[in-house]
Amino acid sequence: MVAQDNELRAVFWQDGKVFILDQTYLPRRLQYLECDEAWQVAEAIRQMRIRGAPAIGVAAAFGVALAIWHMKARSLETVERELERATTTLLATRPTAINLRHGVEKMQQTIQRRLRRAKRSKAKVADLLSVLREEALAEANRIAEADVQANMTLAAHGAYLFPQQCNVLTYCNTGALATAGYGTALGVIRRAAEQGKEVHVYACETRPFLQGSRLTAYELCRLKIPATLITDNAAGLLMQRKQVDLVITGADRIVKNGDVANKIGTYALALLAHQHGIPFYVAAPSSTLDLVTKEGEAIPVEERSGDEVRFLGGVQIAPEEVEIFHPAFDVTPAKYITAIITEYGVAKPPFSSHFSRWAKRTS
Amino acid sequence: MVAQDNELRAVFWQDGKVFILDQTYLPRRLQYLECDEAWQVAEAIRQMRIRGAPAIGVAAAFGVALAIWHMKARSLETVERELERATTTLLATRPTAINLRHGVEKMQQTIQRRLRRAKRSKAKVADLLSVLREEALAEANRIAEADVQANMTLAAHGAYLFPQQCNVLTYCNTGALATAGYGTALGVIRRAAEQGKEVHVYACETRPFLQGSRLTAYELCRLKIPATLITDNAAGLLMQRKQVDLVITGADRIVKNGDVANKIGTYALALLAHQHGIPFYVAAPSSTLDLVTKEGEAIPVEERSGDEVRFLGGVQIAPEEVEIFHPAFDVTPAKYITAIITEYGVAKPPFSSHFSRWAKRTS
Repeated sequence: MVAQDNELRAVFWQDGKVFILDQTYLPRRLQYLECDEAWQVAEAIRQMRIRGAPAIGVAAAFGVALAIWHMKARSLETVERELERATTTLLATRPTAINLRHGVEKMQQTIQRRLRRAKRSKAKVADLLSVLREEALAEANRIAEADVQANMTLAAHGAYLFPQQCNVLTYCNTGALATAGYGTALGVIRRAAEQGKEVHVYACETRPFLQGSRLTAYELCRLKIPATLITDNAAGLLMQRKQVDLVITGADRIVKNGDVANKIGTYALALLAHQHGIPFYVAAPSSTLDLVTKEGEAIPVEERSGDEVRFLGGVQIAPEEVEIFHPAFDVTPAKYITAIITEYGVAKPPFSSHFSRWAKRTS
Repeated sequence: MVAQDNELRAVFWQDGKVFILDQTYLPRRLQYLECDEAWQVAEAIRQMRIRGAPAIGVAAAFGVALAIWHMKARSLETVERELERATTTLLATRPTAINLRHGVEKMQQTIQRRLRRAKRSKAKVADLLSVLREEALAEANRIAEADVQANMTLAAHGAYLFPQQCNVLTYCNTGALATAGYGTALGVIRRAAEQGKEVHVYACETRPFLQGSRLTAYELCRLKIPATLITDNAAGLLMQRKQVDLVITGADRIVKNGDVANKIGTYALALLAHQHGIPFYVAAPSSTLDLVTKEGEAIPVEERSGDEVRFLGGVQIAPEEVEIFHPAFDVTPAKYITAIITEYGVAKPPFSSHFSRWAKRTS
């Protein structure tokens, strides 16, 4: 199953199924995973067949819709219990990206609203489920569409920050594959290129999962945006040689003081950029904001299996017996971030004042 | 062909052949390459079957000895021409590590001395070659032994800098495999462990050639020194969490002002260490010093084939069509280096005064 149009789609709903582009096969093969049940979506997220904070938020929302869609419960209690099981499974997959929780919570709110109404009106469960199916699917589709819209809007805001001609360094994958469409940091790059700016991208390969070489390089080639792939280790040398005009990355969670959790290695890039006087931008939809958490230190950092470092495409690259520490994210302190770009605009330090203003717009 | 004792030997001479441990097969297989001719040694260096600045210096010296050993020249001019061809081929393999040039130059001095004498005495070429063979081999063996001695001495100097209990972060491979024996930065770690210090090592995998995961992790497991492998990207997070007490690396070239060329990515580690107030040590034998070059900017940085980044163990990890920039080294400015350790002792900034004192001891 392959998406119809030329735009890469990381996840979408069709005929009672969730289709997830299996990114572990990229760039070699474009293959979709068909999910009939919520746990399959959860498993795809856990195994990083789909990744990227906005994309997993949307996938989780579709996962909840899927749980509702195929529900055969005969009592309200069973509906609630099965919903609870699905959301718990989805939420347990990955702890750092806040978008996942936001996606699931939005679905829960919509569903709970309907459930409360059903309790009051004592509606038949079969009738309730029939309404709930449509409402849940509509909400999941709305979350997906809102993500694409947010990305396109933030991309326009961010593109203003790019000079007419520039060498941009980016990290991990933040394109269509990391979102419901268009991309965050890669969306900004894309918008700047669409505006006719002469953008050349340095894509860091992003060990160990290689989102940069497998996904970002692939997307940039498809988009025909001039790009050069580098190992993550080469960023410092490029900056020393003044070959980078700006750095732009996505985010997995942005907290109240502006600290940003993102793919492991982002912190070193931000420090290097700071040291060399190079602007360091973070681009993410507002679903990535976590204003409940005050500082980066409180963000849970996921640790993944050492085998993701020990093996690569089935090839063993480290001794069997060596211990491996494999954190998937790190936290970049706000002081190294030049601006944070969301669909609401461009925030410069101090970030918290912008965030509270933005929060008023969402609530 | 496997070395006899338990110590790993990256290169050695036996029965008119140079044996090179083919490090591209590690950690899966311990296999030696037999070289009968100098160009085979050069090819092994170029393809990084043997790597590490001191090791390639020693291998190149053995390469020159091999050229002499099998020489069938009938005139002095042919001897000189064939020698010239061998040294040029060996010198052209890798431009950054100065040890390579030093190894070849030492061999040339020894051989030239004998050639000048032969010219004066009008010795028969066959007689000359017979003496030259033994002298060249003896000189190559001396260079190898001097490297082991230098490493053991610098390791003792360096081990004093380690606290009784410490978490040490290291980069690339600087052990027995990177030298004629014992190791430089890994030699220091090894010495500290032998002294009974409780050393735990964080070994960075070192993309793209993975010297850390393939070689350093392998050596540490053999030596039974507690170690944890990390991706290069995880170093920043470990430092933020105060889990690194010191960083120690080797060097490919140390110039007059103390700037150090080393494996690409070293610069970012040094900057991170500086930012977190963590000592950053460089350990290398004096053969790594290049006091003719004043500053790091003048060091030639080797660029290698993009396919070393695009493929891993035969697996393609980036699109065929994406351009790749793959510099093998970067330069760490002296200001981020806490101390430079050689067999002559421990130099702290300003480094140049130590270096000139040391230079007097070698000349």
